[in-house]
This record gives sequence, C-alpha cells and structure tokens, in this order.
Amino acid sequence: MEQDRPADRKFGKTAKYPKIPEATIRRLSNYLKALDDLETKSEKVASSALIASICSVNAAQVRKDFAYFGEFGIRGMGYNVKDLRYHIKEILGTNREWRIAIIGIGNLGSALLMYKGFLKQNYKIVAAFDQDPVTVVGHISEKMGKPIEILHIDSLKEVVKARNIEIGLIATPPASAQTVAAQLVDANVKGIMNFAPTQIKVPPNVVLRNVFFTSALDNLVYYLSR
Amino acid sequence: MEQDRPADRKFGKTAKYPKIPEATIRRLSNYLKALDDLETKSEKVASSALIASICSVNAAQVRKDFAYFGEFGIRGMGYNVKDLRYHIKEILGTNREWRIAIIGIGNLGSALLMYKGFLKQNYKIVAAFDQDPVTVVGHISEKMGKPIEILHIDSLKEVVKARNIEIGLIATPPASAQTVAAQLVDANVKGIMNFAPTQIKVPPNVVLRNVFFTSALDNLVYYLSR
Repeated sequence: MEQDRPADRKFGKTAKYPKIPEATIRRLSNYLKALDDLETKSEKVASSALIASICSVNAAQVRKDFAYFGEFGIRGMGYNVKDLRYHIKEILGTNREWRIAIIGIGNLGSALLMYKGFLKQNYKIVAAFDQDPVTVVGHISEKMGKPIEILHIDSLKEVVKARNIEIGLIATPPASAQTVAAQLVDANVKGIMNFAPTQIKVPPNVVLRNVFFTSALDNLVYYLSR
Repeated sequence: MEQDRPADRKFGKTAKYPKIPEATIRRLSNYLKALDDLETKSEKVASSALIASICSVNAAQVRKDFAYFGEFGIRGMGYNVKDLRYHIKEILGTNREWRIAIIGIGNLGSALLMYKGFLKQNYKIVAAFDQDPVTVVGHISEKMGKPIEILHIDSLKEVVKARNIEIGLIATPPASAQTVAAQLVDANVKGIMNFAPTQIKVPPNVVLRNVFFTSALDNLVYYLSR
C-alpha cells in the first residue's frame, strides 16, 4: 500500500497533515499563543470566536485554518484547549525542545537572551556568542543578572556540536551577519533566524528566516495609509 | 465620471493601485530592501531574477507581485531600480516620513533606538519613553552614546501631540504592554507595533501589528521539521 501514497511520504513525519499555506502556519503560531494564555487561566474549552477575538482575526478563518488538520471542535461546544495545543504543536514541530544559540550579544542579543516568549515554549537558549565576550559579560551581569556564559565566537563550531544546537539567531551588526551565517552553516546548524537588517545567503539545505523590523513597520504603514 | 469609479475612492490616496494580498505586501517590503541595497551599489537596472535571488523567492513570483501595480519592466531589460523603488514606496506609504515613539527602553527598546534598518528608511524615532528615565539614560549613554533624551511615560500624550508622532513601538515587559497601548491610543497614535510577547487589544481605528519572536521561530521550526 505504501506505493499508493507518495504524497504522504513527501511530508515525512508530518505525513498525516496536508500541505498547509504559509499564512495559516503564521496564524497557527498566534492561535498557539492564545491557547497557551487560556491554559494558563485554566480554561478547558475555547470557541473559535474566542480564539479569533484574542488573535484579531475572524472566527470563520480560525475554523478554516483548523480544518486543515481534521475535526477537533465539537459543534456548539468549541475546542478542547489541551488537545488543540497538542495538535498545533505537533504540526509546527514545537512539541519537542529546540536548542538555540544566539550570536551577537549587544542590546538585541541581550533582549533575545531574556525574551519571556521563549521561556514559555520549547525554545531553549543553550549558548551565547560574541566577538568580545569580556565586555559583554560586564554589561549582561549588570543589566540582567542572567547566569549564561558568553562564549567567544571562535568556539562556535565546537560548542554547537557539544550542545546539540540546531538553530542560530544572528543578532550582530549587519556587517558581520553574512560571516556569522557562514560560520553557523559550517557548524552544521540547520536553521538560522537573522535579525540583522541585511539580506544574507545560506545553502538550500539550511532554513533561513529574517526578522526585519522595517518590514513589520512597512506593513503597519501600508494599512495606516489606506 | 467620478461616480463610475467607486472602487478607486475606497483606496484613498493609493486609488490607482488595486487591493494587494497581504503576502505580496510583505514581499514588496523585502524587494524594497533589495532595491535599496542595489541603489547603494549604484545599480541602475535590476532583473526579476536578480531581485528574486536576493530575496530568496522565484523570479515568476517577483514578476507577478510587480504586475499588481502595472508594467514597470522593460522586456529583456529588467526594472529601473529608481522607478521601482519609488512605486513600491508609494504603494507601501513609506515615501514620506513617519514619526515614531518607542516605549520601554530596556535591551529591546535600546536595540530599536539604534536599529540601522530604520535610519535608511523614512522611519524617524523622535521620542523614547520609560517609566524610569534616569536609570535608562545611564545605560543608554554608556552603551550607545545616542543623544536622544529618554522621557517619562507620563509625558507621553503631550509629547506625541507636540512632535506629531503617529506610531508607537511597545518594547516594555509583557505585563505593561496593554497599559502602554491604552496610553498610546489615548494620545491619538494611529498605529502600534507591539514587541512584547503578549496579545494586546486596541480599538478598531488603530492599526496593530505584533512582532512575536516565537512566531518567527515557530515558522522556522515548521520548515525544519519537514
């Protein structure tokens, strides 16, 4: 029977879910955030209208997005918060720990190190690198009291291997971003999130996402101009 | 003849452009970034293939996106960089200065204050607020030497009016984000970008965008898991 299901194989371990549009993936992440908050408040059940309201989308969109991965809702009852969280995490791949390194511990790197959103999820910052760890350590301990050791960038490859790091967050100045990206690729990191405001290149087997604050502002301004 | 064109009126000053999908708007912002870099390098003409390569999308997508707002390319020649930049900025609404306040000058707020991406665009940070400006000023001047005065949050409304601020960036801890959002709304700010990892509510006449770093990671991890 395996031969009859080539489409399934393509999706590897998420074979039971269909290909989901990128916009839906983005919204799933927001729904997950809403569900986390609801679970914190000990809510057991949530209607699509409630989730929609928290995430500022409409309820039909929420139902349509959830329909991509089957029937979870009980008509007239809403969704079981715990089950829905589980399924969304399974789809996104956030149901297991992801080990992360931050490179560049200036203001932004420091903000990422202590970002409260990561702590709630399975995103574990297990290493921090800078080209000048000594200066940074003074700044960090004074400002944050965070007991993470800042390592020299030259130890990146060794530490990535030793600590099973899969993702690197680049928070360096733009001029260093491409060099650091190459070092991460050389260290066999699988995914890179670039916060430096410059386009970088990575090989096709590495997943790259950029977080450009100007893009978020461009989007805001587009809707403000209407 | 005006009565025959109700669709045009709906779009206000961007009347000559059709309604553009959100995903295209997001990509336009990336194309603009690529074009800025090309113009810095004194490139006059760019092919869709070149722009696509810089932005890691395919050339057909670039051409399709540009087709939303008319024919700029010369077949076989590519696009005039300067013209294209002008049109994209006109569509996005970034062809004029936008005056911005940052609220919460911790690590993230400091990073936003000195974010190099904003300097290249028409995004002008004209005020910075914190609930403890005195402590912050020491940190800022030591770390950045940036000559912006950090103001007390209580002066928000007055300063927003005096300095014609239209957009507020919230970089406070999550627990303060909703309060600050309400203060910004009360000060007649038109757009809010929320960097705090929590969902906030604003009235429908205010445009809200969230920058959740976990969402960017969720998206990365989704593609890593495939």
